[in-house]
Amino acid sequence: MHPLFITDMAIRLKMVLSLLLSAAFLVSTGHGSLLLLELPREIHPLRPRSGSAGDHVAGLSCLSWRLGVETNNLIGWKTVPQECEGYVGNYMLGEQYRSDSRVVAGEALVYAAGLDLAGDGKDVWVFDVDETTLSNLPYYAKHGFGAEPFDPTPFNEWVLEGNALVLPESFTLYQKIVSLGIKVVFLTGRTEDQRSVTETNLKNAGYYTWEKLILNRTSSYSGSTAVTYKSSERGKLEKEGFRIVGNMGDQWSDLLGTSTGLRTFKLPDPMYYIS
Amino acid sequence: MHPLFITDMAIRLKMVLSLLLSAAFLVSTGHGSLLLLELPREIHPLRPRSGSAGDHVAGLSCLSWRLGVETNNLIGWKTVPQECEGYVGNYMLGEQYRSDSRVVAGEALVYAAGLDLAGDGKDVWVFDVDETTLSNLPYYAKHGFGAEPFDPTPFNEWVLEGNALVLPESFTLYQKIVSLGIKVVFLTGRTEDQRSVTETNLKNAGYYTWEKLILNRTSSYSGSTAVTYKSSERGKLEKEGFRIVGNMGDQWSDLLGTSTGLRTFKLPDPMYYIS
Repeated sequence: MHPLFITDMAIRLKMVLSLLLSAAFLVSTGHGSLLLLELPREIHPLRPRSGSAGDHVAGLSCLSWRLGVETNNLIGWKTVPQECEGYVGNYMLGEQYRSDSRVVAGEALVYAAGLDLAGDGKDVWVFDVDETTLSNLPYYAKHGFGAEPFDPTPFNEWVLEGNALVLPESFTLYQKIVSLGIKVVFLTGRTEDQRSVTETNLKNAGYYTWEKLILNRTSSYSGSTAVTYKSSERGKLEKEGFRIVGNMGDQWSDLLGTSTGLRTFKLPDPMYYIS
Repeated sequence: MHPLFITDMAIRLKMVLSLLLSAAFLVSTGHGSLLLLELPREIHPLRPRSGSAGDHVAGLSCLSWRLGVETNNLIGWKTVPQECEGYVGNYMLGEQYRSDSRVVAGEALVYAAGLDLAGDGKDVWVFDVDETTLSNLPYYAKHGFGAEPFDPTPFNEWVLEGNALVLPESFTLYQKIVSLGIKVVFLTGRTEDQRSVTETNLKNAGYYTWEKLILNRTSSYSGSTAVTYKSSERGKLEKEGFRIVGNMGDQWSDLLGTSTGLRTFKLPDPMYYIS
């Protein structure tokens, strides 16, 4: 028998088996994205019963959860699933987060370098701040990497310390953007009363120059989503004559809505969701 | 010293090291998403020099490439990078693809079940066909899993065989959609002359009922992107009074543009890119 025919038969058999299992599990539990994690080990088709391999398969499910988050399929979630706290922690502290960020920043860099710029000082690149240009990983490392419910009080205390770290891949892109003569606009959900500490933190992290730092005037945007706030502020930039040639954030709410820019770039962030 | 302080110091040290390495590598090569893969092993910061771990780190980079594709950061690519052919093949034939698909379909299922439907027969769910409801994996398994340049001649021969497989997770969702009284619309880049074989293939795969099967009339959409074609056809549905409550595809071009629907769901597909 031709080996490709065997592959073909194997694929068909696998699809049929998967079909039977999917139908039973998806329909009967209805818990969406954490189905794999919620099934008892005994009946789980993917989960071996022996020790160490179980971690691998748990990792498999948390990887699927993370992919679901990064592709904007899983929305409106409040915390990282308890089962994935260890996975997300290892991811954020490990090389995969760096590698994932490097692919995004590298693509943005090639894109920026290839832009046909007008050179009239009106080309801008919009960067979000938290988990895009600055990293709050030391804070989240002490708060379950997003598995604990978000508490604004200690988080704001952390922000006011001004010790958020540089995100190296974004910083490399930032340097290229500046060197190309594209103006940098920081557009953040941080509030106006955090302007001074944010400016100092950005400078301490190496971001010395920018055209605008736009912070959330809660008086104007009270109750609005980040999509509404950021779309509105980007619209104002365009009305001022700026062309948004690039837009980078760690949340889809940085990149969706209106006036999103010529091209958007989504950095990884499996720790929290902002709508 | 408090252990959290040590973690904090370690995070800072890692960021600084990463910064130095990113700056050197991103700026000096400018090849975007495959930077990690193109660097010689000797100077690669993440790639160990010994045997088996090398595969792991190659897998790390291809995982980052796949994440870049699924998040729509890497666009306009023609083929899977040669270095990632084995990775993508293992992914497509392995449990991760199933698990990733199950998370998306499971989320869509929970969403659909929670919809407040009018019950007037005007609620529709749009499904793409290839790699969304039907799988061409037996074809791609014989053609490098997307690492070979796409050749329409043998692919169209494969389509005309009518042997594309059911995608089990999507089929489970389809059954739920039908049972909820939501009408199904298939919207595909397949062409009108493939209507008959596509209908037979869908039925053989278990999809027995649908409201519309919309195929590409190349006379109308010659030279258009899939985004334009699909936006236009979805717009027509809306003009006919249908409400698109859900929209699922394996390509971002299924989900972007206009009349995209109340909510979109992106299934995994690292084998090809359609703009």
